[in-house]
Amino acid sequence: MSTNSTQPGLWLNLFQAAQSNPLPLRAQLCTALREAIRSGTVAYSERLPATRTLAADLGISRVTVEAAYGQLEAEGYLARRVGQGSFVAARFARAAEVEPPLRTTALAALSQRGHQLVRGGDCHDPITPLAFAAGSPDLRLFPHDTWRQLCNTRLRHHAASLAGYGDPQGYAPLRVAIAAYLHQARDVRGSADQVLVLTSSQQALHLLGNLLLDEGDVVWMEEPAYRGARTALAATGAKLVPVPVDHEGMCPSEDLPSPRLIYLTPSHQYPTGCALSLSRRLALLEIARKQHCWIIEDDYDSEFHYDGRPQPAMQSLDRHDRVIYLGTFSKALFPSLRLAYAMLPSTLIEPATTVRTLYDGHSNQLMQAVTADFINRGHFATHLRYMRQLYRSRRDLLLEEITAKLPHLLRVHPSPGGLQVMVALPPGSETQLTRQARIAGVATPSLQSLYLMPPGRDGWLLGFAALSADEIRAGVQRLQTLRTDLPFTA
Amino acid sequence: MSTNSTQPGLWLNLFQAAQSNPLPLRAQLCTALREAIRSGTVAYSERLPATRTLAADLGISRVTVEAAYGQLEAEGYLARRVGQGSFVAARFARAAEVEPPLRTTALAALSQRGHQLVRGGDCHDPITPLAFAAGSPDLRLFPHDTWRQLCNTRLRHHAASLAGYGDPQGYAPLRVAIAAYLHQARDVRGSADQVLVLTSSQQALHLLGNLLLDEGDVVWMEEPAYRGARTALAATGAKLVPVPVDHEGMCPSEDLPSPRLIYLTPSHQYPTGCALSLSRRLALLEIARKQHCWIIEDDYDSEFHYDGRPQPAMQSLDRHDRVIYLGTFSKALFPSLRLAYAMLPSTLIEPATTVRTLYDGHSNQLMQAVTADFINRGHFATHLRYMRQLYRSRRDLLLEEITAKLPHLLRVHPSPGGLQVMVALPPGSETQLTRQARIAGVATPSLQSLYLMPPGRDGWLLGFAALSADEIRAGVQRLQTLRTDLPFTA
Repeated sequence: MSTNSTQPGLWLNLFQAAQSNPLPLRAQLCTALREAIRSGTVAYSERLPATRTLAADLGISRVTVEAAYGQLEAEGYLARRVGQGSFVAARFARAAEVEPPLRTTALAALSQRGHQLVRGGDCHDPITPLAFAAGSPDLRLFPHDTWRQLCNTRLRHHAASLAGYGDPQGYAPLRVAIAAYLHQARDVRGSADQVLVLTSSQQALHLLGNLLLDEGDVVWMEEPAYRGARTALAATGAKLVPVPVDHEGMCPSEDLPSPRLIYLTPSHQYPTGCALSLSRRLALLEIARKQHCWIIEDDYDSEFHYDGRPQPAMQSLDRHDRVIYLGTFSKALFPSLRLAYAMLPSTLIEPATTVRTLYDGHSNQLMQAVTADFINRGHFATHLRYMRQLYRSRRDLLLEEITAKLPHLLRVHPSPGGLQVMVALPPGSETQLTRQARIAGVATPSLQSLYLMPPGRDGWLLGFAALSADEIRAGVQRLQTLRTDLPFTA
Repeated sequence: MSTNSTQPGLWLNLFQAAQSNPLPLRAQLCTALREAIRSGTVAYSERLPATRTLAADLGISRVTVEAAYGQLEAEGYLARRVGQGSFVAARFARAAEVEPPLRTTALAALSQRGHQLVRGGDCHDPITPLAFAAGSPDLRLFPHDTWRQLCNTRLRHHAASLAGYGDPQGYAPLRVAIAAYLHQARDVRGSADQVLVLTSSQQALHLLGNLLLDEGDVVWMEEPAYRGARTALAATGAKLVPVPVDHEGMCPSEDLPSPRLIYLTPSHQYPTGCALSLSRRLALLEIARKQHCWIIEDDYDSEFHYDGRPQPAMQSLDRHDRVIYLGTFSKALFPSLRLAYAMLPSTLIEPATTVRTLYDGHSNQLMQAVTADFINRGHFATHLRYMRQLYRSRRDLLLEEITAKLPHLLRVHPSPGGLQVMVALPPGSETQLTRQARIAGVATPSLQSLYLMPPGRDGWLLGFAALSADEIRAGVQRLQTLRTDLPFTA
């Protein structure tokens, strides 16, 4: 919620980008500002530079900047307050940060499949990690200098060889590094030949959903579940069957329809945070073996486990090649890297790689090479150790703050790991409290919306990993202003 | 076909990658070498470093290297010739370079949709631009230093802000730069708000195919056509209808079934190279308007037009929002960048962006920012001017060489632009001559395989852009050894 964090460099870049347009200067500046605000590059509540400052930075007349600001105020992009400055208008808080916009289809002549795809809505992650948006790592503490040096070295010595078309299965040295890491850290079985490099867990779910599911096939989903998985798998036309989650994870029962696929988050169930117990793991593996169905083990943030040692991956228990293991570098490194991976049963390697060529070819080779270097030179292990300690202390602080200051509003769910904690709200209060939190400038991702069968439990998922101690305290302080007539009694 | 180009740095990297494996040194080295050979990182016919050299470079014993080479020879990865050295075995020429392997599905329990996806086979581009593989730009002449400096600057000043989740529609300054470039270079109409950044034309076709087509919908395809488009669109279950191509491009007739989508390559029809004439453009736009169907204009390499000025994009003639314009940076910059773009009719912006969030979220922000910088600082225009001249001279040389030395085998098709030329072979000779060319170490991508309705014309697509003058001459010289009993009479 900084009000003064805008970098002069940012404006210069945006403005230079707009300058290739053959438009008057004022119009160029308006275009750059509109784009920056719409895209969330400049966050809601950020103060824009003073007209004098921006004019000097950009080397243009202050009159031009003044005219552009005036126009954007008239258009509703900016709010200008005398003596305080110009701010991004509040409407863009809702649009870009608190909730992704539901993009509507207007009148486009889509196919029925297209409508089905779009129906589930946008599932993109929040661009700005405001308190308490869920799922983002702290990007301020990534070793960007090390990363830059590794990029530089690769570009100095292998630029041409990394510039061409790459192996659709993934850059071989990265696959070797991933297989070794997974073996060592998660007991995952399988060689580099079974690793498929992808851009994201989302791409893995999209690809596997289409490779393995037909219209009407039954998929067992954890209830509640990760929204991205629900959206990707529902888009295949499969029938998603909610299976309740308790403190041991997914709780299957005999009266459920026979599944073709089971989607699981065994390390930290999303969103409840609990781990799938060993007996449930074995029971689900036995179901998969008997019914010859697939299990997707989405191990999206097991790197960040705080209380004791995490259980090995479920895949390590699988003796019948039923488990497809997914991991991602979006949390452990950074989201915009766009690298994730699957450890595939050997029968799926060829078909999954073929489908990757139809979908989008292969991943950027420079990013793959640098990631391999980062792992192989030990930076990955060091970074994870450091972030794990830091995130643990942030989680502890958030839980303490909630217990001390918000006992009437929030009940904390046990949370041995991950980048967010689930909290329960007084029954019936989620909608009302979320609205109040939004007005107070706090993002409180909905728990109810993660249920396949409404109504779900009232609650929030509070992301803490990207926030400093001060930001956590400030967020909790804002939540203290919330009022409900249905409080928990302490 | 270099025999001495192997970089010591390459081996060191591959070896370091393998070292995270808890295996003996010899096994680590074998793993690294096998991966490098299988993946095509080390090309067929490359000489490996002498055992003494590699041992010194890697800081390990020569005995270990000798043992690893011996094992790989026994396994069939290497051919060792006394007094000459160790070479990648010939079988990997076929596997990695000449033709992409047809990946088989084995016994995996795929869905029907999965089988449909896999049926069309792998459509990935050749990893090593051997003479005369089609479609690759010359990566040796890309301004890698400039690119590295731009990367460096961005990573020095904006690393954290570029590391997070990005706008699924694309990084705003890049969209602005693309819209301005398309307007200036191709007369494409539309603003940055209509640009959707994607990873590749392939992703665009996959996404649009699913958004706009249902099972059984009719798609008009150029005959012959680009294989990647055919594979992506066929995978939707749509019915692909071949429409013949003559010297004016696609030649529609009244007895064709009514289309839901028309796929076109108007600037340089792939593979024939001819441009779609103005009257055909207008006729196809009129069909689209009347039948309310979509047109995909795949403008995949219009940057490289050699004879006169290229026609403006077909999209610039569209008054009814029927044309979806696609472009890519794979040829104009480099393939592994993984950036392409669509200029969308406004009704498709929201649904297409939503589907992008389901498929894989968004593109790497650093690569988008650096591409924007490369364009905005004028490097893109300079690079295109330089490469256009160079590629023109290479095309001219290839045509001269063919006319002078291969008149009995090849008939050149007129080719005003692009990175490859189509040549006709004596009827009935394609299979036989392709086999001979492969043995001679020359890749000669098939024309017949680009026809939807077999048998197509006998011919090849010869890529020239990635080859120096010497490489072009050497490739033609090898083709002079080919023999057929069905020659053209001169």
